[in-house]
Amino acid sequence: MTVRFGLLGAGRIGKVHAKAVSGDANAKLVAVADAFPQPAEAIASAYGCEVRTIEAIEAAKDIDAVVICTPTDTHADLIERFARAGKAIFCEKPIDLDVARVKACIKVVEDTGAKLMVGFNRRFDPHFMAVRKVIDDGKIGDVEMVTITSRDPGAPPVDYIKRSGGIFRDMTIHDFDMARFLLGEEPVSVLATAAVLVDKAIGEAGDYDSVSVILQTASGKQAVISNSRRATYGYDQRIEVHGAKGMAAAENQRPVSIEVANGDGYTRPPLHDFFMTRYTEAYANEIAAFIAAIEKGSKISPSGADGLAALALADAAVQSVKEGKRIKVG
Amino acid sequence: MTVRFGLLGAGRIGKVHAKAVSGDANAKLVAVADAFPQPAEAIASAYGCEVRTIEAIEAAKDIDAVVICTPTDTHADLIERFARAGKAIFCEKPIDLDVARVKACIKVVEDTGAKLMVGFNRRFDPHFMAVRKVIDDGKIGDVEMVTITSRDPGAPPVDYIKRSGGIFRDMTIHDFDMARFLLGEEPVSVLATAAVLVDKAIGEAGDYDSVSVILQTASGKQAVISNSRRATYGYDQRIEVHGAKGMAAAENQRPVSIEVANGDGYTRPPLHDFFMTRYTEAYANEIAAFIAAIEKGSKISPSGADGLAALALADAAVQSVKEGKRIKVG
Amino acid sequence: MTVRFGLLGAGRIGKVHAKAVSGDANAKLVAVADAFPQPAEAIASAYGCEVRTIEAIEAAKDIDAVVICTPTDTHADLIERFARAGKAIFCEKPIDLDVARVKACIKVVEDTGAKLMVGFNRRFDPHFMAVRKVIDDGKIGDVEMVTITSRDPGAPPVDYIKRSGGIFRDMTIHDFDMARFLLGEEPVSVLATAAVLVDKAIGEAGDYDSVSVILQTASGKQAVISNSRRATYGYDQRIEVHGAKGMAAAENQRPVSIEVANGDGYTRPPLHDFFMTRYTEAYANEIAAFIAAIEKGSKISPSGADGLAALALADAAVQSVKEGKRIKVG
Amino acid sequence: MTVRFGLLGAGRIGKVHAKAVSGDANAKLVAVADAFPQPAEAIASAYGCEVRTIEAIEAAKDIDAVVICTPTDTHADLIERFARAGKAIFCEKPIDLDVARVKACIKVVEDTGAKLMVGFNRRFDPHFMAVRKVIDDGKIGDVEMVTITSRDPGAPPVDYIKRSGGIFRDMTIHDFDMARFLLGEEPVSVLATAAVLVDKAIGEAGDYDSVSVILQTASGKQAVISNSRRATYGYDQRIEVHGAKGMAAAENQRPVSIEVANGDGYTRPPLHDFFMTRYTEAYANEIAAFIAAIEKGSKISPSGADGLAALALADAAVQSVKEGKRIKVG
Repeated sequence: MTVRFGLLGAGRIGKVHAKAVSGDANAKLVAVADAFPQPAEAIASAYGCEVRTIEAIEAAKDIDAVVICTPTDTHADLIERFARAGKAIFCEKPIDLDVARVKACIKVVEDTGAKLMVGFNRRFDPHFMAVRKVIDDGKIGDVEMVTITSRDPGAPPVDYIKRSGGIFRDMTIHDFDMARFLLGEEPVSVLATAAVLVDKAIGEAGDYDSVSVILQTASGKQAVISNSRRATYGYDQRIEVHGAKGMAAAENQRPVSIEVANGDGYTRPPLHDFFMTRYTEAYANEIAAFIAAIEKGSKISPSGADGLAALALADAAVQSVKEGKRIKVG
Repeated sequence: MTVRFGLLGAGRIGKVHAKAVSGDANAKLVAVADAFPQPAEAIASAYGCEVRTIEAIEAAKDIDAVVICTPTDTHADLIERFARAGKAIFCEKPIDLDVARVKACIKVVEDTGAKLMVGFNRRFDPHFMAVRKVIDDGKIGDVEMVTITSRDPGAPPVDYIKRSGGIFRDMTIHDFDMARFLLGEEPVSVLATAAVLVDKAIGEAGDYDSVSVILQTASGKQAVISNSRRATYGYDQRIEVHGAKGMAAAENQRPVSIEVANGDGYTRPPLHDFFMTRYTEAYANEIAAFIAAIEKGSKISPSGADGLAALALADAAVQSVKEGKRIKVG
Repeated sequence: MTVRFGLLGAGRIGKVHAKAVSGDANAKLVAVADAFPQPAEAIASAYGCEVRTIEAIEAAKDIDAVVICTPTDTHADLIERFARAGKAIFCEKPIDLDVARVKACIKVVEDTGAKLMVGFNRRFDPHFMAVRKVIDDGKIGDVEMVTITSRDPGAPPVDYIKRSGGIFRDMTIHDFDMARFLLGEEPVSVLATAAVLVDKAIGEAGDYDSVSVILQTASGKQAVISNSRRATYGYDQRIEVHGAKGMAAAENQRPVSIEVANGDGYTRPPLHDFFMTRYTEAYANEIAAFIAAIEKGSKISPSGADGLAALALADAAVQSVKEGKRIKVG
Repeated sequence: MTVRFGLLGAGRIGKVHAKAVSGDANAKLVAVADAFPQPAEAIASAYGCEVRTIEAIEAAKDIDAVVICTPTDTHADLIERFARAGKAIFCEKPIDLDVARVKACIKVVEDTGAKLMVGFNRRFDPHFMAVRKVIDDGKIGDVEMVTITSRDPGAPPVDYIKRSGGIFRDMTIHDFDMARFLLGEEPVSVLATAAVLVDKAIGEAGDYDSVSVILQTASGKQAVISNSRRATYGYDQRIEVHGAKGMAAAENQRPVSIEVANGDGYTRPPLHDFFMTRYTEAYANEIAAFIAAIEKGSKISPSGADGLAALALADAAVQSVKEGKRIKVG
């Protein structure tokens, strides 16, 4: 079976998914839609697919699944439309920045029996997957403590910040999902601290750029998350899981792994400077997993519920910073 | 000038300091006192010094300085006695487990003009010192976030746990001091989480074995501390400092740095399994710094005030766990 | 301009190049030829090209360039035919196992003015390229000594060994090319040692499985090469270049870069176990370089002369082992 | 039993051994002799021993063993004198630069039944010892190939070079010993290349500064040695042993193991810049092994025969460079 795709949104991340779908032997990119003709045509030309309207894709008989890469504020509506149209749906995170809206959307997905996968791409990074496999194989025993480091090479434009829902919902949300992925038990409380250390304009926009979070589960397992919008040495993405029998860690990835030594010491080049090159394999793997789940009719993960859970943790972190208290979740 | 020493307490850590003092060209170990004759005589024989009573050392004309390695509950009293006796004092941490008692003790030190150094040995680890020097040299810009990982190879006996003041005052206190050492600005708030994941007996003794802490300074700088009483792979001691211009980190230390590769992968031996072998150089360096400060009449650091500040952070952490709130300090 | 390709040989390496050509925006795979219909059809179907005979590709107006992936003993003949047919030629190494035959073939290439690139893919590995760039940028000063480690995960079948020309012409030849690439000066002498340590059957086939080589240039620069047909931990491929001002090294590549620690130590997974996964990027980069050179009409490297030079070093190594002497080359 | 020592030679390396002997609980430094009074008195004062003449030490009843740290050209004579005087002898390498003289000296040692240990300190480096233990434990199977990298931070003065016997007898000799230590089988042939790349004055003094050597044993095991008198990044000392089942390697040692990251990448400080700080533990361990062998009456290793074997390899390397041939040894 070949899964036939429509792509909604031909921007930066749309291109990534267009390439992943086109390169997958079990999928075919049939059509692309975008509010602007040029990017849609560029993808159509590069991958030999048609440009269609969203309405046409919704009504199409020759399309089984859609990939939603449009702006965040359209996600929930589109998910609902395509759920009702009977298409399988891959949606970039987040479903929405508002928990109530997300819940309503998930209700529609459930009622229609639609398949929905939310784009927490990091679960599909081969290195993070390998850490998870070490846990699943029992090699480090029961998980006790998780440390997640996530630092961006630089802050996005303040305009983006304003629409982003804030650092916890935009950036830390990946780490909340990763913590859930690794802890193997739901967090029940959130403690968070936040500050503006990188760029005052971010503070003026009502957001933070440097945050620390502690999650705790019912049995006492803990996850610590460190985030910053600044890392001069590249895109810093590390996880470390401590269990009763040992530790598993995923190191940073480098585009070039050489070392140059001289009187100043031994120097290795910086890390990847962009999330798309850092997570190239993860993006391809997540689409492959989506396609495989459709083909096999198997359970889709991460699901809408995963998207909701991560957002709830983000909301709790915002509240914890404001109130200076441990916030219960779940 | 040769600084002439009396050693109070001939136990495990007393032996370490006896060796450090004896090996220092600018110091001489004159006498040792202990409640039990055997260990004192062993040190006297090994390093060619006399066994004396504490009273005799207090009154001695041929002793300039003392190293206090007796049980914790005697520290404050001994500091006060030797401050009044005009000796320079090196005291193992903590001064006392009670903030009020520490304050009273420091008052005596100040009133007598005595020199007091508190044994936060990690400040003298060559790797941690090098990280601090990188900061001081401006190489990573203003410090923004600090991550401290500190995991013991195994839990101490529950009897020790009961007398220890709890994990925050016994173990995390080193990390509180390290955070202050690295942040360059006083923490003003503490958020902490704690659980019993390693050994139920620790919980039954009223303590925790797995804790996570976030400290924040007035300007928003953050330090995150992860502690566990369990690390199967050895004594895990790492620091990582993120600044506006870059990052500096001290890696774990290994007694043997080889690598063996086969079909299972590449394996390096475990870390040190004991704090004394891990911090051998730090113990020697701190005594050397104490001796140098006496000789030069320079300021002594870490001081009694440093001991007090770390204890106050520990107390705040205990309170934060209990109340689920951010606790203000300082 | 789009460079239109014919692929000769649809085996393992043919598939790799078919994918690289098809994935390149400036190239188009037009036809594939193979002695067997099935593999050719598989490639035709996967990449939307035609199956043709070699003769048809030779005569085709719609083909600008060929990629030769047929068995080694056909390489020289095919290069000559396609040089005369006016096609640009990419040929897998080696041109031939016999120096005289290679020289005759290169003569035809020169006489016809054909473009010929020889498939020393490792020059296009991003990590090795980065080392070369460090040299070119003057960061380590004049090159003095090079160390090349190249160990295969396991020996090929003895049948292959028999046809291979021997370890120096089959395996070390890559390292001879790499040494030339890095030394920046032609080797003038070869010293070599060889033994059978891995598999007696290799010795019975008249070959070796474990060899060490020293190359030296006129000015005294040295390259040391270590080769083995056995490496339980994966495909070991390292280079190290020492210059007057410093050192540059390329580390081994791992498919998964995690680390698991427990009481036995810290373990990282094995290296790649196959040259095709290890050099995935190198294969894509070399075809891209070939296409770019055709488009821009720029000089092609590595050339037929590079293939000849590496083969001459291999022949000298064979002779050095036999005669126990330094063999002059060049 | 306490082994009572006389130290012959109070120079740089004499001081190292004085400290090692004094710090060993089973040994006592009784006397020191030197051609110059000042350095002898400095050691006598620092470690509380007497200054005596060599004759007095030779005749002394209160001395069991000597450590010979005098200039190389006195070693063989002193070994013979102290062998006849019934003292156990630790002698810095080499016994002599002339094979015939070494053989004659060893004859005296054998005839007198004296105990002689030759100072190949690297065998006692904890990291190299650990590699050897991995081999002995069978973890990497039969040894097949060894790679030894040894690069000095800088060349010694030309005056030293002239007296040194040349790079193979002065510097590579350590690597010849290490190769024998690791191969577990005697080399039977030597291939060597040498050049002057670092300093013309070294060439004018008749020596080389950059050499490569291949040793081979009867069964075909190979050891490759790379030496240079230049390494801007510190004292480069690595070994790598490949066996039928795997690989064991000892990494370089750093005085400070931190890492600093910024836009230029990740930088670790240089290696040790001096052999004495690099091999501090090795020097202490070798003296401890010597003392232990005396106490237990056990076999001493490395012996005079080890010193002779390494020198014979050095001579063969010199000859191989001159004649361009494989030189047989043993």
